[in-house]
Amino acid sequence: MDKAQQDAMKKEAGIEAAKLITDGMIAGLGTGSTVRFLVDELGRRVQEEGLDFTGVTTSRRTQEQAEGYGIKIVNIDDVDHIDLTIDGADEVDANFNGIKGGGAALLWEKIVAVNSNKIVWIVDESKVVDVIGKFPLPVEVIPFGWSHVFKRLDERGYKPVLRLDAEGKPVRTDENNYVIDLHLERIDDPQALAEDLINIVGVVEHGLFLNMVNEVIVGSPDGPRVLTNPNK
Amino acid sequence: MDKAQQDAMKKEAGIEAAKLITDGMIAGLGTGSTVRFLVDELGRRVQEEGLDFTGVTTSRRTQEQAEGYGIKIVNIDDVDHIDLTIDGADEVDANFNGIKGGGAALLWEKIVAVNSNKIVWIVDESKVVDVIGKFPLPVEVIPFGWSHVFKRLDERGYKPVLRLDAEGKPVRTDENNYVIDLHLERIDDPQALAEDLINIVGVVEHGLFLNMVNEVIVGSPDGPRVLTNPNK
Repeated sequence: MDKAQQDAMKKEAGIEAAKLITDGMIAGLGTGSTVRFLVDELGRRVQEEGLDFTGVTTSRRTQEQAEGYGIKIVNIDDVDHIDLTIDGADEVDANFNGIKGGGAALLWEKIVAVNSNKIVWIVDESKVVDVIGKFPLPVEVIPFGWSHVFKRLDERGYKPVLRLDAEGKPVRTDENNYVIDLHLERIDDPQALAEDLINIVGVVEHGLFLNMVNEVIVGSPDGPRVLTNPNK
Repeated sequence: MDKAQQDAMKKEAGIEAAKLITDGMIAGLGTGSTVRFLVDELGRRVQEEGLDFTGVTTSRRTQEQAEGYGIKIVNIDDVDHIDLTIDGADEVDANFNGIKGGGAALLWEKIVAVNSNKIVWIVDESKVVDVIGKFPLPVEVIPFGWSHVFKRLDERGYKPVLRLDAEGKPVRTDENNYVIDLHLERIDDPQALAEDLINIVGVVEHGLFLNMVNEVIVGSPDGPRVLTNPNK
């Protein structure tokens, strides 16, 4: 699959998901290349169709894009609930366990997700996998003492790599933390890994989103298909 | 016990603990009113006795105080281990379970603690209790979405209070997070509470330090006594 084909599938999933947003909703808006297409479509509907909803964003990038379209964005602490959150994912398996955080926004994304009544992910079909873990698992860590967290992850055989920017400096999240990517190749017991990671002092969050999503809209050459989580 | 008596006991514990620091050590230095006396004494020994050790601090406050005495301070990520950390505590019970974070430095304190070969706490005798929890338990939370974490804590009956500064604004930790204090009165199962708290998305750390300390030096009117943890 080349990039143009992949973008076409992402766009298809984004446009399909935009139909779920209706007047009066409080909607969580994720982060990433697929969500960009979603926000483009929502911006079009706000401007052309007068769609009237309120957004809560999971990153400064998404906030800027949405506000550029005149979408009304509020702070997550100014609402008491979120009706529906639409976000991307880097991988998702048949048990609706996923990896997120390729865009370094996993912390805010997870905070928005756990406060949402319903969660929909939009992906191109390359993201649907048998076993998650081929995509490096992002772990958000406190800069203070990060090297000791790195050592612990390394000792466990998790193959950690500190994420660097183009200038070779550590990437900073919107909360000013570092990201360490775990090159695990396959994660056979995501629940056990999640518990291990969250109990390491210095780890703020990790990119495992386990059985949180209600529906996944998958863009494919034959049109979007919807996977529904039977356990939610 | 009045404040002068309490300060005398804190000072006694601090001076006693300072004897544990010897030439060549890498020593973690905690935060708080009792640790201030420790750092005063270490500063005196550096200046008068030529004590030569390297400190790793758990807050900007302690770093400033120590550097004011000419104590050599390095970043935690510039050392591969810490020989001994001396810190205060807000409460400690007979099982060597403690509450820390009254000074809002619990995150860096815990990061330093878990990377230390040995941990000693210095307290006045009012801090030694049968059951921890009378002292409000600090929980460090990400500002983004803090009100939803607060709601979860409230729903669990944990009696949360957002910590405010003198101007009525949320206190910020050295990592720029908020602190929510839980007014539990008594914590009968600290391990279960710790697991519950760390799994709430948006919680960075909490002030339960369970079976981490090796020794507690208790200042009392009869002189300092040492409690040794048999399970470490």
